[in-house]
Amino acid sequence: MNGLVVRHIPRFSAELAGGLAALGVATLHEAQGRSGLMQPYMRPIYRGPAIAGPAVTVLAQPGDNWMLHVAIEQCHPGDVLVVACATENSDGMFGDLLATSLKARGVRGLIIDAGCRDVAALTDMGFPVWSKAINARGTVKATLGSVNIPVVCAGARVVPGDAIVADDDGVVVIPNAAVDKVLSAGRQREQAEIDKRMRLAAGELGLDIYSMRPRLKEYGIRYVDTLAELDD
Amino acid sequence: MNGLVVRHIPRFSAELAGGLAALGVATLHEAQGRSGLMQPYMRPIYRGPAIAGPAVTVLAQPGDNWMLHVAIEQCHPGDVLVVACATENSDGMFGDLLATSLKARGVRGLIIDAGCRDVAALTDMGFPVWSKAINARGTVKATLGSVNIPVVCAGARVVPGDAIVADDDGVVVIPNAAVDKVLSAGRQREQAEIDKRMRLAAGELGLDIYSMRPRLKEYGIRYVDTLAELDD
Amino acid sequence: MNGLVVRHIPRFSAELAGGLAALGVATLHEAQGRSGLMQPYMRPIYRGPAIAGPAVTVLAQPGDNWMLHVAIEQCHPGDVLVVACATENSDGMFGDLLATSLKARGVRGLIIDAGCRDVAALTDMGFPVWSKAINARGTVKATLGSVNIPVVCAGARVVPGDAIVADDDGVVVIPNAAVDKVLSAGRQREQAEIDKRMRLAAGELGLDIYSMRPRLKEYGIRYVDTLAELDD
Amino acid sequence: MNGLVVRHIPRFSAELAGGLAALGVATLHEAQGRSGLMQPYMRPIYRGPAIAGPAVTVLAQPGDNWMLHVAIEQCHPGDVLVVACATENSDGMFGDLLATSLKARGVRGLIIDAGCRDVAALTDMGFPVWSKAINARGTVKATLGSVNIPVVCAGARVVPGDAIVADDDGVVVIPNAAVDKVLSAGRQREQAEIDKRMRLAAGELGLDIYSMRPRLKEYGIRYVDTLAELDD
Amino acid sequence: MNGLVVRHIPRFSAELAGGLAALGVATLHEAQGRSGLMQPYMRPIYRGPAIAGPAVTVLAQPGDNWMLHVAIEQCHPGDVLVVACATENSDGMFGDLLATSLKARGVRGLIIDAGCRDVAALTDMGFPVWSKAINARGTVKATLGSVNIPVVCAGARVVPGDAIVADDDGVVVIPNAAVDKVLSAGRQREQAEIDKRMRLAAGELGLDIYSMRPRLKEYGIRYVDTLAELDD
Amino acid sequence: MNGLVVRHIPRFSAELAGGLAALGVATLHEAQGRSGLMQPYMRPIYRGPAIAGPAVTVLAQPGDNWMLHVAIEQCHPGDVLVVACATENSDGMFGDLLATSLKARGVRGLIIDAGCRDVAALTDMGFPVWSKAINARGTVKATLGSVNIPVVCAGARVVPGDAIVADDDGVVVIPNAAVDKVLSAGRQREQAEIDKRMRLAAGELGLDIYSMRPRLKEYGIRYVDTLAELDD
Repeated sequence: MNGLVVRHIPRFSAELAGGLAALGVATLHEAQGRSGLMQPYMRPIYRGPAIAGPAVTVLAQPGDNWMLHVAIEQCHPGDVLVVACATENSDGMFGDLLATSLKARGVRGLIIDAGCRDVAALTDMGFPVWSKAINARGTVKATLGSVNIPVVCAGARVVPGDAIVADDDGVVVIPNAAVDKVLSAGRQREQAEIDKRMRLAAGELGLDIYSMRPRLKEYGIRYVDTLAELDD
Repeated sequence: MNGLVVRHIPRFSAELAGGLAALGVATLHEAQGRSGLMQPYMRPIYRGPAIAGPAVTVLAQPGDNWMLHVAIEQCHPGDVLVVACATENSDGMFGDLLATSLKARGVRGLIIDAGCRDVAALTDMGFPVWSKAINARGTVKATLGSVNIPVVCAGARVVPGDAIVADDDGVVVIPNAAVDKVLSAGRQREQAEIDKRMRLAAGELGLDIYSMRPRLKEYGIRYVDTLAELDD
Repeated sequence: MNGLVVRHIPRFSAELAGGLAALGVATLHEAQGRSGLMQPYMRPIYRGPAIAGPAVTVLAQPGDNWMLHVAIEQCHPGDVLVVACATENSDGMFGDLLATSLKARGVRGLIIDAGCRDVAALTDMGFPVWSKAINARGTVKATLGSVNIPVVCAGARVVPGDAIVADDDGVVVIPNAAVDKVLSAGRQREQAEIDKRMRLAAGELGLDIYSMRPRLKEYGIRYVDTLAELDD
Repeated sequence: MNGLVVRHIPRFSAELAGGLAALGVATLHEAQGRSGLMQPYMRPIYRGPAIAGPAVTVLAQPGDNWMLHVAIEQCHPGDVLVVACATENSDGMFGDLLATSLKARGVRGLIIDAGCRDVAALTDMGFPVWSKAINARGTVKATLGSVNIPVVCAGARVVPGDAIVADDDGVVVIPNAAVDKVLSAGRQREQAEIDKRMRLAAGELGLDIYSMRPRLKEYGIRYVDTLAELDD
Repeated sequence: MNGLVVRHIPRFSAELAGGLAALGVATLHEAQGRSGLMQPYMRPIYRGPAIAGPAVTVLAQPGDNWMLHVAIEQCHPGDVLVVACATENSDGMFGDLLATSLKARGVRGLIIDAGCRDVAALTDMGFPVWSKAINARGTVKATLGSVNIPVVCAGARVVPGDAIVADDDGVVVIPNAAVDKVLSAGRQREQAEIDKRMRLAAGELGLDIYSMRPRLKEYGIRYVDTLAELDD
Repeated sequence: MNGLVVRHIPRFSAELAGGLAALGVATLHEAQGRSGLMQPYMRPIYRGPAIAGPAVTVLAQPGDNWMLHVAIEQCHPGDVLVVACATENSDGMFGDLLATSLKARGVRGLIIDAGCRDVAALTDMGFPVWSKAINARGTVKATLGSVNIPVVCAGARVVPGDAIVADDDGVVVIPNAAVDKVLSAGRQREQAEIDKRMRLAAGELGLDIYSMRPRLKEYGIRYVDTLAELDD
């Protein structure tokens, strides 16, 4: 499927995207049963941003950013561009010119399983990138890849139109069809944590709030005053 | 020794802890003969904090943070929680709820040889963590580990009650019985550096301050104007 | 060539250095044909600084910073000190005392293929370092290395007097004899990007600006509305 | 989808499997357009074996091999068991007892994105394993995963019933529906190489066999006798 | 504790050592509650050997093998030499001359958390080594370390006189005082596995042998014929 | 210097090559002052071969083996082909067809700072390769690199015509002009070791053979019977 560009992908509303970004990666990852998380080597080039949007995907060749130009034409406002690489690579496939173009089209940010450069400029212009590396090395435009096909990016499968949520904790992928359900589950989860957070802040223990003591006992937990006691 | 919780550990005064935190990791590591340093992959989730306190230790199973809840009950104000993992793991064992609970008990910070999540929230609430990774992936509560047994964390042995000192340079462990002596040696070391720092700032060379020239000569150092000269 | 110190190296003007620093690593790396880049594991200890200057080189032994003291005497104002290591090592060979000395001599910064410590102090005093690791572990002064011989640092060859340029994107080496030509090529490159940046910001596509469509077609690019279409 | 076991998966004939194994990973990876390759860290525990068969998949929790027991019941003669892990883990999830059970059911081999142990015994009994690590550390049976759901294993997506081919070069995944086509393409590829191999063995150059010279010239290749010549 | 050499360490009989070597690393690691395993990057330089013996320990400086010569004098027939490094290092600290000396003293093998060289010669002479790397780079003799002090080697604590067991699966450490108990527990474990191995070889399932079905049910396992079924 | 092919390089005699191969990497690395060693991640695809010859160098683009075809034409019998990569890459750039061609031209082996495939076939045909990875992933022929220019390969600088020596311990580079001198120094070194090996085999200690005791004493070595003794 090299050299393929798919034009139509499912999208979801900016309202849903806002809801996802507000909940954040850790909560949503839990809310969908601990799946869809990219590997933790994917880090933001600067701290702070939290974004969400439908994925436009790119499968790129190592050291070759030609397909990013092709992909930009397929991006709509609110999208998140996701670049997977055909093989492990950390070249700097993305810099401030491409970011200028993406920003002009209203793209929310970039997820790239390779390198990124011009990070000072990207930070100044406020275009968020999650990447595997910061690397000044440039790339060629010599070999075709594909746009909007399913890819594996940093260990997670991304189908075009899936929701991408990214913040300081990393990047999570939510299947397009599950966005509503996961958002909803995430909100319930967050609601449940408010009460717990207050009780914990007041000094109550998780051991009691979650009623862990009986099960710990059943599993054979043993309290001693000192290790020396064990030898008696 | 799985499923064991030891209640009593030696501690040292907040005053000593303050002294250690002020000297910092690099100085104390030198002062105790260059031992006790955790591996450099242990990094603070945000820059700036410098803490010290007696270690409450946890040996956790991979992908399982159950024992952290058990450990919190054993923490006193001023303690530092140290989490070692039974096997290499970077799951996000620790987040803002556990931090809220630790903060309520006056714990100074967390050292975890695994992952940490909710880092934006932790930064906002000012709870310092040194970890191996930032990772949104959550954990189960299914298998017992132990609390307050000796562990190896990031390559350093930690006995409960040992002093943990952590800052932007990393994390160092000082045996409980050696705290006074190492603090003292650290202060002398720091004192000695003040004079050197001023002389170096004034342009004097380390070569002269430390009288290195004779030993360099003895070891055979050879000065030439250019490499070409060697071929003559 | 152990124990060798070369006194005379070629240098270039502060004006040229200023020009290089202003263009930055990514642009200059491109301008010299994508060569000379150090590996991307070389990272600044704090974000922001952009420096350039002639390289004074050190080949150090693992865990031994003796030759750094020797090298400082060979540094002139405006130089950049480059430390390669005879074998892979991440010990903290460099800290605030050596930085004080380098700063007193007007050295612009340090590139070290090993560890750095006292990073809070270095940040406060504004002395920029690009290193492989942050590591509190100290070093001995027991074995000779060399100063101002050609070295391989983080995968790039550095001949004494070569230009070192370092910023948030990494570190690039430019042969001394090529500084003028590369600076010139870099400026042309930057000039050419200004127009493109404006057109991209206005919404024009790289596909059109760079006339990529015919070549993509020639290489066999294929646009479809949906993947399902392919099965028909 | 935790705790899910799917009973029915598509399979393909032993004859096709034999054909795939004979062609090998490198050829088949090319034949299907350079997709489906697992990351190169997946290595055989001993050299020599070349296997192929339909994938029975497991999604396991880190440090927990419970689901392998569940999966074995779903295996048919000729299958290849593929174990993905919910998070990066190298614990020794698999050893000689599980291998004995798999062998008794006619399973051809194991692909595991985690650790393997008892490798001396596995070598003696001739049960081939491709794994991320050799690791004696045992695992618990405490948390559910799933069997025969789509997984990402070592960077490659595996749908149950897909063909797995593994040899000394690594592991490749071929979608079940594409097995015939890829086998066919692989055979053509192999046929084409026989002639080339003989010509190359006879001393002909790839430059001529593949008619590369004109295109190299078009791309600007330049032959010189010595580098010095360039400076003239 | 630099420059310290401890002469007397506890040892255990050759008979016990033989028993440990016969059981192997995986079984003994389980038998002592899954503790004491070195990290899996420790690999034998050639496959096959299985050894056990009391540990003589060395704490060496990076790139410096001086203390190995000091340690050899402290070795008795049947010992295993364990070399930890003060900092991460993979230099080739050990080669055929040191091996000749160790063999002459009846030492069973070497465990080194650094590099090893002359591996062809070591293989020919049958001296087994478990190391972090194979590396031709030689080392100096310039800085003191210590012999027979407690060390952390590849993530495991080793006290002089502890039992070291090493085979194709890796390296495990058993506290000297626990050798009898662990050997005994290991033998029981092995005995128990003989019956299971025969039942598994006969086609019985672990699910039944270990009575896993009820607990899987309790944890909510769910069998379906196809994934499609779930959407109904 | 992209797209450049240099035709003439210095070579040395097959006799000298034989002498180098017989001495081996570890000895020659020492004999030339511990320089020129490639990083230890360069491993032979099968154990046993020991080769030496003048380097024909290639600078290749990531994922692109076009220049290997160009390089083969420049190879003479007895040469060793050295492939450096413009950026970190582990794609399988080399397989049995290229090996057939190199063998036909009398090339002794391949050193490649990237991946290699068809390793079973390469082993069968006895063509030795030292590589960074074994990887079935194929490459394109789309971008020019260069042949016979100086490169940095696996951390070592290689000038065309330099001697490459490779065996089970790794790969070392010796400058063409230094071959005679290093071979000579290597032979002296080997001669000196014969006597030492016999004395060590007879049970004499390195401490005595190398007269280390006085210097150890001077450096402050301290022998105690037990650690407990220190507390008295």
